[in-house]
Amino acid sequence: MSQKAIFYHAGCSVCVDAEQQLAHALDPNRYSVEVVHLGEAPMRIAEAEAAGVESVPALVLDGQPYHINFGVPLADVKGSM
Amino acid sequence: MSQKAIFYHAGCSVCVDAEQQLAHALDPNRYSVEVVHLGEAPMRIAEAEAAGVESVPALVLDGQPYHINFGVPLADVKGSM
Repeated sequence: MSQKAIFYHAGCSVCVDAEQQLAHALDPNRYSVEVVHLGEAPMRIAEAEAAGVESVPALVLDGQPYHINFGVPLADVKGSM
Repeated sequence: MSQKAIFYHAGCSVCVDAEQQLAHALDPNRYSVEVVHLGEAPMRIAEAEAAGVESVPALVLDGQPYHINFGVPLADVKGSM
């Protein structure tokens, strides 16, 4: 039974690089990775915030947020909607 | 043939959490993960810097640095030696 991993991004170049490298480097036998583009799915921003995501790109593993490098603050993603 | 992933840390609580979750979540069929504690192996700080690591914890995948959350600036790790 695989665990859920959610990769939140906003289409920025830092985000895309982190997605291609890190999100897809996870063990597929243990994690099912969902990629969420918050610019295209703004209704999921609240869910990301609730998980503790402060900037994107971020990976939520077992409910814990891991910010990967620094692309865009979540506040800016919200502000651009 | 697996690719090399190097996880640099300095023993801080943010580092330990990121190691247990993220460094060990990588696909073992594709990545062989080396964990380097820079406090115990200060001779490897220069190597981390050369890879672009600015703070720990950080994961270097295919030569690219990914800073994971924010524990300690590399400068502080050097300063404590």
